[in-house]
Amino acid sequence: MTSANLPAPSPITPTVDFDRNGVQHGFLRLPYSRDDSAWGSVMIPIAVIRNGNGPTALLTGGNHGDEYEGPIALSDLARTLDPKDVNGTVIIIPAMNYPAFRAGTRTSPIDKGNMNRSFPGRPDGTVTQKIADYFTRELLPRADVVLDFHSGGKTLDFLPFAAAHILPDKAQEARGFDAVKAFSAPWSMRMLEIDAVGMYDTTVEELGKTFVTTELGGGGTASAETIRIAKRGVSNFLRHTGILSGDAELHETRWIDMPSADCFSFAEDAGMIETMADLGDRVIAGQVIARIYPIGRTGAAPAEIKARLSGILAARHFPGLVSAGDCAAVVAVLE
Amino acid sequence: MTSANLPAPSPITPTVDFDRNGVQHGFLRLPYSRDDSAWGSVMIPIAVIRNGNGPTALLTGGNHGDEYEGPIALSDLARTLDPKDVNGTVIIIPAMNYPAFRAGTRTSPIDKGNMNRSFPGRPDGTVTQKIADYFTRELLPRADVVLDFHSGGKTLDFLPFAAAHILPDKAQEARGFDAVKAFSAPWSMRMLEIDAVGMYDTTVEELGKTFVTTELGGGGTASAETIRIAKRGVSNFLRHTGILSGDAELHETRWIDMPSADCFSFAEDAGMIETMADLGDRVIAGQVIARIYPIGRTGAAPAEIKARLSGILAARHFPGLVSAGDCAAVVAVLE
Amino acid sequence: MTSANLPAPSPITPTVDFDRNGVQHGFLRLPYSRDDSAWGSVMIPIAVIRNGNGPTALLTGGNHGDEYEGPIALSDLARTLDPKDVNGTVIIIPAMNYPAFRAGTRTSPIDKGNMNRSFPGRPDGTVTQKIADYFTRELLPRADVVLDFHSGGKTLDFLPFAAAHILPDKAQEARGFDAVKAFSAPWSMRMLEIDAVGMYDTTVEELGKTFVTTELGGGGTASAETIRIAKRGVSNFLRHTGILSGDAELHETRWIDMPSADCFSFAEDAGMIETMADLGDRVIAGQVIARIYPIGRTGAAPAEIKARLSGILAARHFPGLVSAGDCAAVVAVLE
Amino acid sequence: MTSANLPAPSPITPTVDFDRNGVQHGFLRLPYSRDDSAWGSVMIPIAVIRNGNGPTALLTGGNHGDEYEGPIALSDLARTLDPKDVNGTVIIIPAMNYPAFRAGTRTSPIDKGNMNRSFPGRPDGTVTQKIADYFTRELLPRADVVLDFHSGGKTLDFLPFAAAHILPDKAQEARGFDAVKAFSAPWSMRMLEIDAVGMYDTTVEELGKTFVTTELGGGGTASAETIRIAKRGVSNFLRHTGILSGDAELHETRWIDMPSADCFSFAEDAGMIETMADLGDRVIAGQVIARIYPIGRTGAAPAEIKARLSGILAARHFPGLVSAGDCAAVVAVLE
Amino acid sequence: MTSANLPAPSPITPTVDFDRNGVQHGFLRLPYSRDDSAWGSVMIPIAVIRNGNGPTALLTGGNHGDEYEGPIALSDLARTLDPKDVNGTVIIIPAMNYPAFRAGTRTSPIDKGNMNRSFPGRPDGTVTQKIADYFTRELLPRADVVLDFHSGGKTLDFLPFAAAHILPDKAQEARGFDAVKAFSAPWSMRMLEIDAVGMYDTTVEELGKTFVTTELGGGGTASAETIRIAKRGVSNFLRHTGILSGDAELHETRWIDMPSADCFSFAEDAGMIETMADLGDRVIAGQVIARIYPIGRTGAAPAEIKARLSGILAARHFPGLVSAGDCAAVVAVLE
Amino acid sequence: MTSANLPAPSPITPTVDFDRNGVQHGFLRLPYSRDDSAWGSVMIPIAVIRNGNGPTALLTGGNHGDEYEGPIALSDLARTLDPKDVNGTVIIIPAMNYPAFRAGTRTSPIDKGNMNRSFPGRPDGTVTQKIADYFTRELLPRADVVLDFHSGGKTLDFLPFAAAHILPDKAQEARGFDAVKAFSAPWSMRMLEIDAVGMYDTTVEELGKTFVTTELGGGGTASAETIRIAKRGVSNFLRHTGILSGDAELHETRWIDMPSADCFSFAEDAGMIETMADLGDRVIAGQVIARIYPIGRTGAAPAEIKARLSGILAARHFPGLVSAGDCAAVVAVLE
Repeated sequence: MTSANLPAPSPITPTVDFDRNGVQHGFLRLPYSRDDSAWGSVMIPIAVIRNGNGPTALLTGGNHGDEYEGPIALSDLARTLDPKDVNGTVIIIPAMNYPAFRAGTRTSPIDKGNMNRSFPGRPDGTVTQKIADYFTRELLPRADVVLDFHSGGKTLDFLPFAAAHILPDKAQEARGFDAVKAFSAPWSMRMLEIDAVGMYDTTVEELGKTFVTTELGGGGTASAETIRIAKRGVSNFLRHTGILSGDAELHETRWIDMPSADCFSFAEDAGMIETMADLGDRVIAGQVIARIYPIGRTGAAPAEIKARLSGILAARHFPGLVSAGDCAAVVAVLE
Repeated sequence: MTSANLPAPSPITPTVDFDRNGVQHGFLRLPYSRDDSAWGSVMIPIAVIRNGNGPTALLTGGNHGDEYEGPIALSDLARTLDPKDVNGTVIIIPAMNYPAFRAGTRTSPIDKGNMNRSFPGRPDGTVTQKIADYFTRELLPRADVVLDFHSGGKTLDFLPFAAAHILPDKAQEARGFDAVKAFSAPWSMRMLEIDAVGMYDTTVEELGKTFVTTELGGGGTASAETIRIAKRGVSNFLRHTGILSGDAELHETRWIDMPSADCFSFAEDAGMIETMADLGDRVIAGQVIARIYPIGRTGAAPAEIKARLSGILAARHFPGLVSAGDCAAVVAVLE
Repeated sequence: MTSANLPAPSPITPTVDFDRNGVQHGFLRLPYSRDDSAWGSVMIPIAVIRNGNGPTALLTGGNHGDEYEGPIALSDLARTLDPKDVNGTVIIIPAMNYPAFRAGTRTSPIDKGNMNRSFPGRPDGTVTQKIADYFTRELLPRADVVLDFHSGGKTLDFLPFAAAHILPDKAQEARGFDAVKAFSAPWSMRMLEIDAVGMYDTTVEELGKTFVTTELGGGGTASAETIRIAKRGVSNFLRHTGILSGDAELHETRWIDMPSADCFSFAEDAGMIETMADLGDRVIAGQVIARIYPIGRTGAAPAEIKARLSGILAARHFPGLVSAGDCAAVVAVLE
Repeated sequence: MTSANLPAPSPITPTVDFDRNGVQHGFLRLPYSRDDSAWGSVMIPIAVIRNGNGPTALLTGGNHGDEYEGPIALSDLARTLDPKDVNGTVIIIPAMNYPAFRAGTRTSPIDKGNMNRSFPGRPDGTVTQKIADYFTRELLPRADVVLDFHSGGKTLDFLPFAAAHILPDKAQEARGFDAVKAFSAPWSMRMLEIDAVGMYDTTVEELGKTFVTTELGGGGTASAETIRIAKRGVSNFLRHTGILSGDAELHETRWIDMPSADCFSFAEDAGMIETMADLGDRVIAGQVIARIYPIGRTGAAPAEIKARLSGILAARHFPGLVSAGDCAAVVAVLE
Repeated sequence: MTSANLPAPSPITPTVDFDRNGVQHGFLRLPYSRDDSAWGSVMIPIAVIRNGNGPTALLTGGNHGDEYEGPIALSDLARTLDPKDVNGTVIIIPAMNYPAFRAGTRTSPIDKGNMNRSFPGRPDGTVTQKIADYFTRELLPRADVVLDFHSGGKTLDFLPFAAAHILPDKAQEARGFDAVKAFSAPWSMRMLEIDAVGMYDTTVEELGKTFVTTELGGGGTASAETIRIAKRGVSNFLRHTGILSGDAELHETRWIDMPSADCFSFAEDAGMIETMADLGDRVIAGQVIARIYPIGRTGAAPAEIKARLSGILAARHFPGLVSAGDCAAVVAVLE
Repeated sequence: MTSANLPAPSPITPTVDFDRNGVQHGFLRLPYSRDDSAWGSVMIPIAVIRNGNGPTALLTGGNHGDEYEGPIALSDLARTLDPKDVNGTVIIIPAMNYPAFRAGTRTSPIDKGNMNRSFPGRPDGTVTQKIADYFTRELLPRADVVLDFHSGGKTLDFLPFAAAHILPDKAQEARGFDAVKAFSAPWSMRMLEIDAVGMYDTTVEELGKTFVTTELGGGGTASAETIRIAKRGVSNFLRHTGILSGDAELHETRWIDMPSADCFSFAEDAGMIETMADLGDRVIAGQVIARIYPIGRTGAAPAEIKARLSGILAARHFPGLVSAGDCAAVVAVLE
């Protein structure tokens, strides 16, 4: 009876009512039949804090499952935010790719889905694609402003920054950069997305929403310092949008950008990596910023990884071992 | 024909000659028959740099396979140390538990052996025990001074320190602390080992050798800063022993110790950990230093992890997820 | 040379001739190249018992690979059915999802395919989709009546019932319910399929065939009692259709249905499940029918699972451990 | 400093005080260093309910990790037992082999240890052996009476019975049978252990304690009915020992035994098993009680499994697939 | 901004310049984000040896990752070919399915992709499909002649032959057979591809290129003899095309073909295979060429595999164990 | 009740009677409780063919589970040997390490046990050790002559030879070489075992039995030719011992030996191996007999493997990929 012209409805059922005032802690229930549960489901935690008809903020973490500043700041916020302090609606999903988050992995253990390459999603696709589709068709249309937390995960480490994209709609772009400024991370980034296919960012922005993303550290951990940045950032973001009252607590930020593919240095060899510059260090084009030792012998010369332009070391490969093809380092340029 | 009173000989064959002057890069070859190689072997890289009859230093990393400051500093040393600068012998094994090191794991993927709980080892035991036995019966008897590098590995992060043990032989103990001072890490530790069974440390010290160990960071990575500490430390250590000439390059160090089991705070719950103090921060007894959020719901109160005595946060659980029973934090006391 | 408008032919080759009288035991051979067999195949057992031009029954089990009443009854029937007793053709495939059946799992270990969500299938898809396609395009067109055996599998347990669907074509619907009555299980179900996408049932019914399905127990086992129900049911089914002579051996059956989504109670917590009502017990709306204990501690209060309407406990979660999102219980309503 | 003549102390630290009155919910903490937690531990839940100097009962489940009646009844008891109602001490460990219990498997996922073949254990052995040693040297010496719950687990199903052993000390034996009578399961068993090496039972009995064990069902599930038997049984057991006041709630029980190795029928073939008698059915020697169908073909004759003596079907293989060497059925003899 | 009518660009970036004279050793870098490398890549080795504007040969091995004659001969050629000896361009990719080649498996460990069933590929597909797409749209358009090395891999063993396809374009067909003759393997095959969907061969030939493929042995190894055949063959092929000067070194070859599906004998039973004819042996229709013993018992009669036509044993199942559905033997016919 | 001075009885129960005349096909049943079968067993096939009180031959294959000439020849013999032709007893166990044989792996998938390093075994050890113990204490005492088939398995390939050991008891040694001569393989070896600990060979010989072993090919396959050698060899062996009547069918054999550790050439690098000499080729000391290419790049020089003495290439590494530490080649010396 379903028309071929209409997409299938989402298989996800929320246990919360998005239009009810007050605090609700519930789930997005996604049926997932499998060998160890014939009639099982994925239960994605969600909190809705609503007070009247003000704007709606959609706050997410765990887009990649091994990044923790966002989920921690959002779990704290979901538990403590008082609807009396809210003007409008705050929708909090601490872990978008909840199966990945449970597993502590970047991608979903169910389908190896990278959430940030799965948008706009499909209602009849993999588990990851079904979640993406629910955001695209059900959650994003409710939102005015969107904040998505990222960090480097287990295999990358980043300078802590908030970011927005350079966009064709300059008014939308300006709203993004204003929100980044309000977030007030130690570093702020203007991003020009080269390969935007499949990203949550792209879907959000194509719907005209104001969008802020972050990279707040990495290594699969979160420090007290980066958690403070995340908590302060989300409060500032909500104040900036008027959903929370009061002024954003502004801190100094330095603006950086990544002007070209030369920002990235890739390893051509596997081995043990010797980091030769730390995050935030100034580096100059041609400088050896890392070396890769073969691990099967002593005495062999290590391969050298060089900076391809001058700037600030903004990100680096995190694990002590490296594979050929891994991004070893990212150099950003101060504005 | 083998007497029941004599232990079996080690199955390991070195490809280096420990008594030859000059630089040799070779292997300890340990036969290891298995499904994917009927007549295969484990090939543990070793370098020997010798110049005459001076003292012998045995330098090791990779006792745990996911700790990198030691293997990096030692790979660099093995490649660059000129025998002309040496008075005696330097034996370098960057990765004691080489199968673990190749896999990037704490323990051996072959037998799950924790090298530092496998001493004194057995010639007819598991691969890890056979390696330990070779150290106990072949390498350690050649050594006068022993330096073994550790860091926190993928699941712990430490303040960078060198350490020696409180020992019954006070002359041996003094030699250890003098060597720690020469190593000159930012922090130095006097350790009272409570559970010494199976440790390399114990085997080394029972043989009367001067022994220094370290914890130089963690998280399964190494930063430019901790690598500098490791490289400087091993040079200082060799100068201190007279194997290299010149004075140790001393830096300020702060001495700490761990007086009791109350240094350790364990998690009783699984979840996502919110770190509330960073390494080096002062904490006071009873202070909440971490919280553990249940990951299946929003809105639930996190469990609290408290410091059990006052001091310095010396180590913490590294990954964003934590299991019941994990050591969440270690508090050390400034001397 | 293949026209874009024509689907590819099925890659499956049968070793039986569907038009030959007598008994044939053979295979559906599906090429499956893989690491451990470059030119390997999946060999799906099939039996064809034919005697003249009467109607054709297609009898299947193992649609899910961990359900056993059907495969047992059909293996027995395939081995013992004498063509002299047959008027027409009986096609028996004891295990539709043969790779899953071999593995004892609900879904295929090759592609994780849930056969009952893979219809109508694709000739160029996964192994599971290729099998579905062969049913859709080759086997079903030969059939007049279709019986597909299910049970609860390893993770669910059911009251033993046969079922047919409420259908838009009331004549077809009546043929289904008549066949259910003839099957004569202890319980009989009128099903209103809510989410029919991808089901074998849907494909069979869209082709206008008379279709009966079952749920005959579960837990990944089969009892002597449920096997008796299955054997009697398939004989009755064939007698009812006139393919076997003689009258169906009728037993008392009670008719139930599942009127709404409130039949299903889902777990929101993981833990150890305490079953508080057994299959066939009367329950009333609001009654606690199961409790879930956290497994990491003693002393904590269990979560409660309540019946959402009054009726008969028709199915329950089977394993002692339960995950958030699992269907804990199903309540059916007596007609 | 440890004498070679003294066994090492247990590495396990309890967080409860066995001599304190009142209710305590805590853990036995067993350090377990591994790749995903350098300083991790196994945390075995334990409850101690004490009121004065009366006798001590040690109550355990989860000796095998996939048996649920015991853990459910004991979790309920631990949560609800009021110390005011107790005369003496009740020590409850719902899951002896806690790593196996978490995994839902018979044996430990850490070391594949079968707890009931690991006694008396070793303080320097595997995780399973360390737990066994703690029972042998720390918990059992505190106990007067011991109840250990078993069921069939995922691969066997049993008639529900309590059991005690035929023992050389007839007074001890009588205490065991009296306690079985008090437990009041539908069936009661007199067991003659043929192969007692490594069993918890043996260790308990060698220490002279009164010991009751059970088999209360199986299949890796627990029904409302078998849970009722377990809850009633443990209450009756405590009343019988005087730790709880009041009379045991006695029910009719039938006594059975297993007189010889002929009770057991083993499969010599792999395939799909057709159960031909249900638990509690009378069978006679020579009767075909199961058949095994080859799964790769239709039309082949199944192998037959016969009862080797006459009696009651007391246990059977549970999964639908069977391997060569599996115990297919157990016949017991009514006294 | 991408038009829906244009396919996405390939995500692969080469580090070589196809238009530069001289020798280049580099990579095709394919971004591959995954749990163990957020910004990782697959690095496919490639060599380009160019000298002016003569014809271009594309030489490949490792289409299946467990076939070694090609990768060895091409690795040797890439290292030793002097551009001075070249007239035109030689593009060498020793391992098309590089992830499979690293793993020593037929298909990719990343996506189980069989490269030779993944053409023409997709730029937004799996890793294997992305590589196929790069060949289809970037590499093949540069090529005039194409040589793709195959052997039997770990599970098949072949008589060493080169082959070309019977094609509708008889001029193209003739160019193929001429090149096969020049290759000068001990055996040469005229192939009629029945199921050409997804093959590299098909894509190459549809582009009108001259194409030669081989089967040069198997078992997951390469002998000195088959390596000699491969090295000689590729030199001959390049001489034949004029890219290398000098005459091809011709050897005697015997021409065979596979006229029908009767060339293939499939196993219907699993077990241990007794090979009864060796490669190159003459066999006659009906001859038992292999037997399959059940492995669970002694004394049972083995199943027989018979030749279905008379000819030469051209290929056989390699491992000692066989599964139902495996191709046990291939008989070819001498021309 | 078991005396500490007596070893435990074997847990293995045979289903055959070793003293009964005629043919018996049965099992050695070894209880093996595990997650997927609580009361499961390993069922090792055994055949006993007996006719009166003549000598006893114990014939085994599958000591390593991926070697097939022995299991095939012995399965054929077990099925076809007529007791009327026998004088004495023939005990046939086609697969000593039956779990490994089922898995097609050198070692047991249960405990990674290498059967030929597990002797004399333990009744309370791992599954592999329990099997070894049963041979040592139950089967070998019954035997007069023992033949154990080996081949190279999946990772080595050998010239086909039978072998016996140089022994201190020269009469026993002579019996061995006489039996090797009777076996009549193309090659015959005099072996001086350097590292005999744990070998079946050693246990057999220490009991004074006449013992013949073989290496008959490899690569995890068996050719028609090597199977013929195995079948002829075992018949010859039985004729030589007088258990079968008639003369051994003698063929020419060449005697070789392995005089020192210089026979073996080990790889120090991982990569793709280029075999440069085939089995049976003459090689001279210093000759490059294999090269190892790095697989991550083109253009790099391969490492060279050289013969360390002059002789015949008797064995080589089989798979196309090689690891550091693998035995690449074995050179034997013609007598």
